[in-house]
Amino acid sequence: MHDTRKMQQLLGWQNRGMSNRATTRPEPEPLSAYPVMRAIPTRWMDNDAYGHVNNVVYYSWFDTAVNAWLIENGALDIQRSPTVGLVVETHCNYFAPLAFPQIVQVGLRVAHVGASSVRYELAVFGDGALCAAKGHFVHVYVNAQTHRPTAVPAQLKKLLETLA
Amino acid sequence: MHDTRKMQQLLGWQNRGMSNRATTRPEPEPLSAYPVMRAIPTRWMDNDAYGHVNNVVYYSWFDTAVNAWLIENGALDIQRSPTVGLVVETHCNYFAPLAFPQIVQVGLRVAHVGASSVRYELAVFGDGALCAAKGHFVHVYVNAQTHRPTAVPAQLKKLLETLA
Amino acid sequence: MHDTRKMQQLLGWQNRGMSNRATTRPEPEPLSAYPVMRAIPTRWMDNDAYGHVNNVVYYSWFDTAVNAWLIENGALDIQRSPTVGLVVETHCNYFAPLAFPQIVQVGLRVAHVGASSVRYELAVFGDGALCAAKGHFVHVYVNAQTHRPTAVPAQLKKLLETLA
Amino acid sequence: MHDTRKMQQLLGWQNRGMSNRATTRPEPEPLSAYPVMRAIPTRWMDNDAYGHVNNVVYYSWFDTAVNAWLIENGALDIQRSPTVGLVVETHCNYFAPLAFPQIVQVGLRVAHVGASSVRYELAVFGDGALCAAKGHFVHVYVNAQTHRPTAVPAQLKKLLETLA
Repeated sequence: MHDTRKMQQLLGWQNRGMSNRATTRPEPEPLSAYPVMRAIPTRWMDNDAYGHVNNVVYYSWFDTAVNAWLIENGALDIQRSPTVGLVVETHCNYFAPLAFPQIVQVGLRVAHVGASSVRYELAVFGDGALCAAKGHFVHVYVNAQTHRPTAVPAQLKKLLETLA
Repeated sequence: MHDTRKMQQLLGWQNRGMSNRATTRPEPEPLSAYPVMRAIPTRWMDNDAYGHVNNVVYYSWFDTAVNAWLIENGALDIQRSPTVGLVVETHCNYFAPLAFPQIVQVGLRVAHVGASSVRYELAVFGDGALCAAKGHFVHVYVNAQTHRPTAVPAQLKKLLETLA
Repeated sequence: MHDTRKMQQLLGWQNRGMSNRATTRPEPEPLSAYPVMRAIPTRWMDNDAYGHVNNVVYYSWFDTAVNAWLIENGALDIQRSPTVGLVVETHCNYFAPLAFPQIVQVGLRVAHVGASSVRYELAVFGDGALCAAKGHFVHVYVNAQTHRPTAVPAQLKKLLETLA
Repeated sequence: MHDTRKMQQLLGWQNRGMSNRATTRPEPEPLSAYPVMRAIPTRWMDNDAYGHVNNVVYYSWFDTAVNAWLIENGALDIQRSPTVGLVVETHCNYFAPLAFPQIVQVGLRVAHVGASSVRYELAVFGDGALCAAKGHFVHVYVNAQTHRPTAVPAQLKKLLETLA
């Protein structure tokens, strides 16, 4: 069911076909390329009618990995924060199928910290540390009341630097 | 709650800040840029802890719009198709918040048909035809048994041409 | 795929087998038994690995039907309400399968209004007004700050009476 | 945020009010009442607009706990099984709120094995083994092709007996 090699050949092939559209083609990366790792067990409902985890679900894992890391490191308090990180861009490339009841590992790194924005890069690893997907996730910080852009909170900036 | 103008100013601002990363910055588009339109009512669970539709949910709308259009036009039969469209890449830019119980319109167009792949472009419109998000979705066709890449099915190719 | 008659025979059979557990066995009801009706299109992700709408999804439709009706009738303002309806019990019996891309109709009625609680009864109808499932949903009203039980809001009580 | 004691008082109060409707009122149970236990980390999207895990999500945990246990014990092979377990009834009582990023424990026991049906009982435990919810889940076994009721598979029956 998890015909990974063929799927990866396929990806290589597919990316060649699209090389006129993107200057760099996304490639699987090793687990070691991501300093923060979070185990997420799949759920029955993650599988769609094809018996594999649906493409949408990967984004719920990205969201979970980023927000859990922020909350557990004291950099996000949903109820009280005067600033909110709005998600303005997300992206994912899929390299190999996953299926319930696998436990996946979601890797997280900080790719860029701007004046008001943070770009996270994420990857999903299956059995044997296989890189099944990777993508990114961009937060822009705004004032929770006015929704005007605001500086990345100082405490968060410090935390983000620990990963740089 | 739906502070759209500020959010769009924000996006412009945010994209300028990231202009070194992307040659073209994503911009909202009019409803007329999408030949196929599908109404999707939001669900209570689509809202997250911030009281807006979560970023993940937009992808479930993309998936729904593409697959419903394929099924309703006779180009996808999940149980019997000898070929399967695997999702290899998805992307979304968010311009303005949405919230339950809104009904959104999801626009669909075909951007590229390759030997084995199809690239769909999608946008989500809120009240007053506001472009709240846009993104893309790439299918690669493979043999359902061997998972080897295969030509885009002839019947589908014909259907896709009706949108070109 | 939607082998309804067999599924309903099955249900009858199944209920007989469990008759020592429940004094009344749940039966499909006509659409006319529900004064409020809401159309909800299925989504691709609603289907699970068996190619039918997963049992969990029906509850997201119940939640959607109840809350949309409350919001659209001015009886629920998530941001400002001093009282909150907590869900303390939900239940569903499944009579026939449903599958994407069907549009379902969710019927709603008010079964009981207590001092602090409201019991809603819901049913899901597929093609040809087939009753595919029915269930219930109990809200208990509490103060949003203290979480102590409080009277069902007067405005809501009035609204609920319009369905009695 | 997790005002458990008040919520449990509330439940007691609420159940008294409904005592004419149910002969036994559902009560929290200890973790030891469930022989199988599964850790399920919450996800960001599990929280709804009130900042707590939405009532629907508990059912996705039930589904996950039952199916993972069946698959991991060799009693369910989605692709090849000649029989399928259809879900015909689910139920849940909610005793205390849960919120991302908690890890919950889902307890599972077998309450009844009939000729063609199995009734599972489940509970969700939060921090400090607090019983946050409990419910049930009924499978009826049918032939995967004809959808006619069939005996509970022998291998599964054996497995279920290990929990009795």
